[in-house]
Amino acid sequence: MARQRYCLGLDFGTNSVRALIADVDSGEAVATAVAEYSYGEKGIIGDARNPHVARQHPADYHESLQSCVREVIEVAQDATEFSADDVIGIGVDTTGSTPLPVNEQGKPLAFDVRFADNLNALAWLWKDHSAMEEAEQITEFAQQHRPEYLKRCGGAYSSEWFFSKIWHCLKVAPEVFEAAYSWVEACDYIPALLTGTVQPDKIKHSVCAAGHKAMYSEEWGGLPDAEFLGMLDARMGALRERLYERAYASDVAAGRLTEEWAEKLGLPAGIPVAVGGFDAHYGAVGAGVREGTLVKVIGTSACDIAVAADGEGPPDIPGVCGVVRGSVLPGYYGIEAGQAAVGDIFNWWVTEICEGGVEQHEILTQQAAKLRPGESGLLALDWNNGNRTILIDARLTGLLMGQTLQTTRAEVYRALIEATAFGALTILDRLEEYGVEVKRIINCGGIAEKNPLLMQIYADVTGRRMELSHSEQTCALGAAIFGAVVAGKERGGYATTEQAQEAMTRTKDISYEPNATNHKVYQELYKLYRRLHDSFGVAGHNDCLYDVMKRLLAIKQRAIVP
Amino acid sequence: MARQRYCLGLDFGTNSVRALIADVDSGEAVATAVAEYSYGEKGIIGDARNPHVARQHPADYHESLQSCVREVIEVAQDATEFSADDVIGIGVDTTGSTPLPVNEQGKPLAFDVRFADNLNALAWLWKDHSAMEEAEQITEFAQQHRPEYLKRCGGAYSSEWFFSKIWHCLKVAPEVFEAAYSWVEACDYIPALLTGTVQPDKIKHSVCAAGHKAMYSEEWGGLPDAEFLGMLDARMGALRERLYERAYASDVAAGRLTEEWAEKLGLPAGIPVAVGGFDAHYGAVGAGVREGTLVKVIGTSACDIAVAADGEGPPDIPGVCGVVRGSVLPGYYGIEAGQAAVGDIFNWWVTEICEGGVEQHEILTQQAAKLRPGESGLLALDWNNGNRTILIDARLTGLLMGQTLQTTRAEVYRALIEATAFGALTILDRLEEYGVEVKRIINCGGIAEKNPLLMQIYADVTGRRMELSHSEQTCALGAAIFGAVVAGKERGGYATTEQAQEAMTRTKDISYEPNATNHKVYQELYKLYRRLHDSFGVAGHNDCLYDVMKRLLAIKQRAIVP
Repeated sequence: MARQRYCLGLDFGTNSVRALIADVDSGEAVATAVAEYSYGEKGIIGDARNPHVARQHPADYHESLQSCVREVIEVAQDATEFSADDVIGIGVDTTGSTPLPVNEQGKPLAFDVRFADNLNALAWLWKDHSAMEEAEQITEFAQQHRPEYLKRCGGAYSSEWFFSKIWHCLKVAPEVFEAAYSWVEACDYIPALLTGTVQPDKIKHSVCAAGHKAMYSEEWGGLPDAEFLGMLDARMGALRERLYERAYASDVAAGRLTEEWAEKLGLPAGIPVAVGGFDAHYGAVGAGVREGTLVKVIGTSACDIAVAADGEGPPDIPGVCGVVRGSVLPGYYGIEAGQAAVGDIFNWWVTEICEGGVEQHEILTQQAAKLRPGESGLLALDWNNGNRTILIDARLTGLLMGQTLQTTRAEVYRALIEATAFGALTILDRLEEYGVEVKRIINCGGIAEKNPLLMQIYADVTGRRMELSHSEQTCALGAAIFGAVVAGKERGGYATTEQAQEAMTRTKDISYEPNATNHKVYQELYKLYRRLHDSFGVAGHNDCLYDVMKRLLAIKQRAIVP
Repeated sequence: MARQRYCLGLDFGTNSVRALIADVDSGEAVATAVAEYSYGEKGIIGDARNPHVARQHPADYHESLQSCVREVIEVAQDATEFSADDVIGIGVDTTGSTPLPVNEQGKPLAFDVRFADNLNALAWLWKDHSAMEEAEQITEFAQQHRPEYLKRCGGAYSSEWFFSKIWHCLKVAPEVFEAAYSWVEACDYIPALLTGTVQPDKIKHSVCAAGHKAMYSEEWGGLPDAEFLGMLDARMGALRERLYERAYASDVAAGRLTEEWAEKLGLPAGIPVAVGGFDAHYGAVGAGVREGTLVKVIGTSACDIAVAADGEGPPDIPGVCGVVRGSVLPGYYGIEAGQAAVGDIFNWWVTEICEGGVEQHEILTQQAAKLRPGESGLLALDWNNGNRTILIDARLTGLLMGQTLQTTRAEVYRALIEATAFGALTILDRLEEYGVEVKRIINCGGIAEKNPLLMQIYADVTGRRMELSHSEQTCALGAAIFGAVVAGKERGGYATTEQAQEAMTRTKDISYEPNATNHKVYQELYKLYRRLHDSFGVAGHNDCLYDVMKRLLAIKQRAIVP
């Protein structure tokens, strides 16, 4: 019998890092470990004066990386005949766009004592929205001068993305901008750190980060040109040559694990580390994304990932955040859409408004499950954190309507779940309208696994079967898969990502089928949702909303007395 | 020194009845007493199957009447040299429209054992909204056949009003409708009960109830004609002749206190009892309403009362619920507007959503007071209980927008207060647009007295000084004033209502002045409120609301960093 081989997936999330050791043959998790970040509030460093600020300290990456890899190896050794020598490759995913300023040696400025107290020298976490103005201006400049740049990122550049954040740093903290030789994404920094390639001229950048967040495309020869960036600010233009020319899919190795890090982690030196990518994209890989299959990663926010064959050129889908070749599966266009808040909205309601905790989620879920669709007369927009797809507008906010003097917490809770389902359907409709056929939907992420009510509502709202990924750590599994791919077939891994996926991913036996009666009610409610969506979200959309409250009451009346 | 004279005011509210003994010369309260109702939930009998149902049992009126008059006499005797023999007149106000079905002797069907378990034989409380369809149909019929009927009640007939409720009873409980010889308002029933005039041919009906809720006007010879009512249903047409031909202002006596009730209450037999009226209208009289003075009675809901001189005919104000000659001050047109929920909305937030009580109101008020106008980025519509003025539409519901993942309970609480202030300003603007000049605003009611934050927000939103009525029992004082008027000057009372008011009412020393800075922000927010108001509330209003969320964010940004 051949010796068993393993691969390691590292998933750097918003609050913690997770390590997964997977069996290369089956994809089964041999061991997992989690290390919480210690800086700020669960790893997020905010600014009391500005709710849009969300930063991370790279020291958290260094420290949690070591502790959780050490731990996962111990767990694996306790459970099986695992030997760390049989780990053949490593994959890494992180949140994104989470860029951090680095010096000429590739060292984060956050470690520079001059900036010890400067929030702007930290990593700018994906959910930092302080660069809203810059995003709008970049969108405007691009519309005028480089419309092609916007085509691949959904028609608008976001405040969450690479150049918005860097430009905002230039404006609010020029001393940090000036001290930065370059900026790297967290998903590029960590593989580079492990492989000793952090120097800006050595680092292998992720096409996932580059294409989805930095307007990179081979169509125009890489990143936006210096002339364009110079229109924002001459110093942005000058930064261009200190960025990078080429980006890679994750079936390419970023390098090999250094002696130093091999020792720190207790792994064999020299094993390959894949070029990094974003958590959602890796999650889709770990969930089994392929042509015709949409993967939904549903957690605090939601990310929808699909792929389209490379043949007739990239699909052109207005309002979809990104269409990037190789960002999910090498050789396919990766399509990324998403909702800026899902679980975060329910958490907001429970934590801020109901002042409750986990048990309050459970109580409200039980009560909400007893309600019939439409019965509450409520309708909400899922925009408490802006709208990512299909409006790409951080300056949108939440809305709740239909409340009476009898409206309950649980009714609002259900309305918020329904709102996120309507948001999900809006994305699904848009993909299909523009030729991305969706035959299967596989869900993963904390909320998908733990919330059957939400999954059933999603099935009822969309009228589609909702499947669940077998793995509950799809992001880390996706990273492990790329670890197996960069190891290569001859060293016990795989020749292609599809082959690795085929062997290493599957779905659960349980799935959620749509209820036809509920779907019918939700079709009515969805029409009203879309009218609100367009009235508040689309410029120039003149709709008389006079009937909306009345229709909700009529639906409510029918739901109460069917 | 002349012997001191007193008058008694009885104010039948939603949850309790209040008795006030006032000094006839000064209007000062000598004693007050309150008796809570005992049926249902604080006097309100609901229906679990239909949230729109709200009824009262007339037994509550009988029982609480006795206990609270007995008590107020005791309190007065303990406090002063008061003798019940010196009470010279009684006035009575109630909620309305609160009609109840009665038999040929004028006895409520609620006391008939056949209907002991029938909700439809009870008094249909003002806030019962079960007759929404009937209201819409009455409005339609009137628009087609008797447009003049709607002109005096704001252009639409309400589900809260007399004929909507009776017709709905006919549909859902024809056995009750058939058993009812006639229907009387609570404000007609109680003076009739005290004076032994409950038989339908003896009872003196209130012009306040008739004109504001039953389309009564001398212009067309009283109540709607039988032909019109017959269009609704032949049995409604047949009811017409068992109603009444004439209605009276409250400077007319309904009759004299019977021996039986004099004994039950411990008052002198034969003293006059004024024709009844509604609480808000009496509240306005007790607060000192006159030409140029708007009185706002702010409690669970809000009622705005003004008067206009009788000269050039009645003012014609679209969306204002009622313009009725003699309904407030005899000889003037009484103008009634209002908001279907004010305190009820704050109570909903605190009770249903925050699951708190009085102390939670206090906490949220303290926190809300620290917020600057616009700072929360929130905007709400005050329609949780529909819109009474200027849209007259029970099929409108609440709306909250601008929420983020950081929005707090207190921010919503303040936004709800602001929403009611914007609703109040909408009414004020409408009155002035149609020629009812408002030079002073006098506030009364529980919320006005107990909530300085709300009063300041109302001042800041409207840009007007907010005064407070000196009396905290303006409804009961208004009733007492009419008791003094019907007693007449020769028996120690007054010749006219104005003379009685002049002597018996005044304002508090404290008042709320608008803050110019806040007013400026609120002017911006009010514009956005009016756009939502019109988009959701006015048929055919096409507005692109795309900028509303963005404007709120801009206002928020300026409020945070002024």
